[in-house]
Amino acid sequence: MTARPETCDAFLMGRVQLHQPERGYRAGVDPVLLAAATPAEQGETVLELGCGAGAASLCLNARVAGLEFVGVELQPYYADLARRNAAENAANMDVVQSDIRNMPLTVRDRRFNHVIANPPYYLKEKSTASVDAGRDVAVSGETPLETWIDIASRRLAPRGVFTMIQKADRLLDILSALEGRLGSVRVRPIQARSGRAARLVVVQARKLGRADFVLEAPLRMHDGPRHERDGDSYSDKALAILRNSAALDWGN
Amino acid sequence: MTARPETCDAFLMGRVQLHQPERGYRAGVDPVLLAAATPAEQGETVLELGCGAGAASLCLNARVAGLEFVGVELQPYYADLARRNAAENAANMDVVQSDIRNMPLTVRDRRFNHVIANPPYYLKEKSTASVDAGRDVAVSGETPLETWIDIASRRLAPRGVFTMIQKADRLLDILSALEGRLGSVRVRPIQARSGRAARLVVVQARKLGRADFVLEAPLRMHDGPRHERDGDSYSDKALAILRNSAALDWGN
Repeated sequence: MTARPETCDAFLMGRVQLHQPERGYRAGVDPVLLAAATPAEQGETVLELGCGAGAASLCLNARVAGLEFVGVELQPYYADLARRNAAENAANMDVVQSDIRNMPLTVRDRRFNHVIANPPYYLKEKSTASVDAGRDVAVSGETPLETWIDIASRRLAPRGVFTMIQKADRLLDILSALEGRLGSVRVRPIQARSGRAARLVVVQARKLGRADFVLEAPLRMHDGPRHERDGDSYSDKALAILRNSAALDWGN
Repeated sequence: MTARPETCDAFLMGRVQLHQPERGYRAGVDPVLLAAATPAEQGETVLELGCGAGAASLCLNARVAGLEFVGVELQPYYADLARRNAAENAANMDVVQSDIRNMPLTVRDRRFNHVIANPPYYLKEKSTASVDAGRDVAVSGETPLETWIDIASRRLAPRGVFTMIQKADRLLDILSALEGRLGSVRVRPIQARSGRAARLVVVQARKLGRADFVLEAPLRMHDGPRHERDGDSYSDKALAILRNSAALDWGN
């Protein structure tokens, strides 16, 4: 593996230090939101499918003490980063380098209280020339969302919770894949500003859940009518999540 | 048919006068929102499935001139009301008393620019004793949402638009039924107040549409933290729709 220039970035006001490649796929706000939306409690187990450098699991670890993580990551470079990041952040996290469709028995024999995922936002187009292979795989996956959800549902313990963040325009595929696999589905839209269509959705579902579907109020990331400068205008709720490690509340 | 006590109610600041039974199923805000969300233009044709006393079609008729309506209503009493209401409101509306699953050829031979529907909000439970049979059929239908959507999709002209209002907790059934039938799906959540989960959803889809799914920002019905008195606290957007016959905007 060739050495790649890295940065070490602070998440949650420095509570998480994350080594990432200087170029290529880099964790932003989305894994922080995914971690905030995961209702894990002390002593529970969490499987992250496609954990990248570990941002989501490590942010969740910073918010909730006493969790046990397994992260599965396809790309050896990111799996290695996640392993180092887990150690540096003192997380109880086992990182497995594997395709999620072909995970080792150490993972496939287990059931988890939580499965979380921030799958690639685009299906890989075969004709696209790749500028950065690592980023390409992280952003444009080859595994359909239905496969991610099928694998997640199989790894959940009874009453276990699946939490996923994804582009809003893929919600139909997500809901269709959840049908017959998981129940008690809730959708939390993430909008840039008041009045805007959702850019992202956090989708949560429970194994054997039978509650009615809930379409939650959107989480508004920014106040004011337009984006002035990065970070300038975060809403109170977004700030609480991004800086104070608050949970993303579901319902009222 | 026995004579039933009726009221005559003003919608859209009196632009629509609607005769309704004093007791039983009565149109409220929902058909007004459905009409506001329907992007019909002068000269187009509109089929309303389950038109009741005609509230949605007549509100749409008050906002957009030069539309031609066909309303299909199962219950003879409501079909008769819709016919009278259409005449009194000078709407070009043909009311057909029929089960939507078995409509006459005069309807089944046609394709419409728009199909609109505000289907019953609950599936009828067979054991429920009926206090008011008319209200019971209007609120608790026996026809699954998938059947409503299948019939709507068959009656749409190419590029025709289906617009439906329904309880938010049935969104999964709606989206599942739209799959493979209609495209360019958009969902507009309707929330009582800021921060609340959606109570209703307006769902729109287009025949042969291929646009990405869009989850719109919610329409907030009321301002302020709690409901003081009916109508006291409507938001500006809700007031524009309910009093000034404004369209419910899709996107920005």
